[in-house]
Amino acid sequence: MAGKEIEKLIKTIAKLPALGTRSARRIVLQLLKKKNEQMLPLISALQDVAENIKTCKVCGNFDTEEICSICSSSARDYKTVCVVQDVADLWAMERVGFYKGLYHILGGVLSAIDGITPEDLNIENLFSRLETGVFEEVILALPATIDGQITTHYLLNRLKDSNIKITTLAQGIPVGAELDYMDDGTIQMALTSRKEL
Amino acid sequence: MAGKEIEKLIKTIAKLPALGTRSARRIVLQLLKKKNEQMLPLISALQDVAENIKTCKVCGNFDTEEICSICSSSARDYKTVCVVQDVADLWAMERVGFYKGLYHILGGVLSAIDGITPEDLNIENLFSRLETGVFEEVILALPATIDGQITTHYLLNRLKDSNIKITTLAQGIPVGAELDYMDDGTIQMALTSRKEL
Repeated sequence: MAGKEIEKLIKTIAKLPALGTRSARRIVLQLLKKKNEQMLPLISALQDVAENIKTCKVCGNFDTEEICSICSSSARDYKTVCVVQDVADLWAMERVGFYKGLYHILGGVLSAIDGITPEDLNIENLFSRLETGVFEEVILALPATIDGQITTHYLLNRLKDSNIKITTLAQGIPVGAELDYMDDGTIQMALTSRKEL
Repeated sequence: MAGKEIEKLIKTIAKLPALGTRSARRIVLQLLKKKNEQMLPLISALQDVAENIKTCKVCGNFDTEEICSICSSSARDYKTVCVVQDVADLWAMERVGFYKGLYHILGGVLSAIDGITPEDLNIENLFSRLETGVFEEVILALPATIDGQITTHYLLNRLKDSNIKITTLAQGIPVGAELDYMDDGTIQMALTSRKEL
């Protein structure tokens, strides 16, 4: 009823994360009404990304170069590598700006249910990087889910004979959070890992 | 941190309705990961719409032709015109499929606060259409808000000397709704407009 081009655009947008047909319709209407202010800039921004963004051959980050700006930076601590599940996690760490080392993006975690094996992840590249002998510390910053923890243990097991220091992110009560609102698992973990003052 | 092209795309997407920076980031990551399955189809669907969709010169609907498929259809009741605020309202009516007449899209409603006067809306075109003498009924289907009702009254006032039948959508309890959950205004309106059985 709204022209097959519009219907197709609505369907394409509705497939994006957190969107459905209803919100896709609203977005398309807004784009149609603001063609010069929003639709054309969106097309050109998308084209820019589609044409220029590559996956970093070293760590798996997205950047305009084949080796990303973090991997090729001389200002980063090249002796530390932080293993994360996804580029979103790298972005979150970089927003904080506290961590100065390098990254390695697995592109997921092992999962028996989803049939994700080590071969499906960016794991062999990680070991090739570690074999260069440059790294002194590997921070395993995988999700605190069962699959994430299984992946951490898998990596830990394969790294146990190396001389590299292996660490993981501290688990406990988030900064600013009230005990009353925490789930049982977090409280238990915070108690188990309690620190002497 | 994620390359200026990616940052720009995130900002452009974050401006769309119902989206913010967080959801824009998720969308961009998904697009980057599924370049061939999602990003390139999205670009081509957007380009299709940007190149082909026009605003109908008669009613204000969006279509590939200068006169939209509804206005140019011989299967529609050309003696009835339904005045709506927005293309979204036309889409909603067409999804129901019950109404068989034509439309006229005002592109908004009068608003003292937002400074929207009759000149800002697609109103003169409406009167030009009505002056052709073809129409026998005008359905004023504007929103049940104060601005919508003011616009209805403005149109009613300008149409009072014409011979055209003027109607508006019935107001009352929505089909399937429970009285207990209705707001006071709706209950009052439903009582005022009560019908003899």
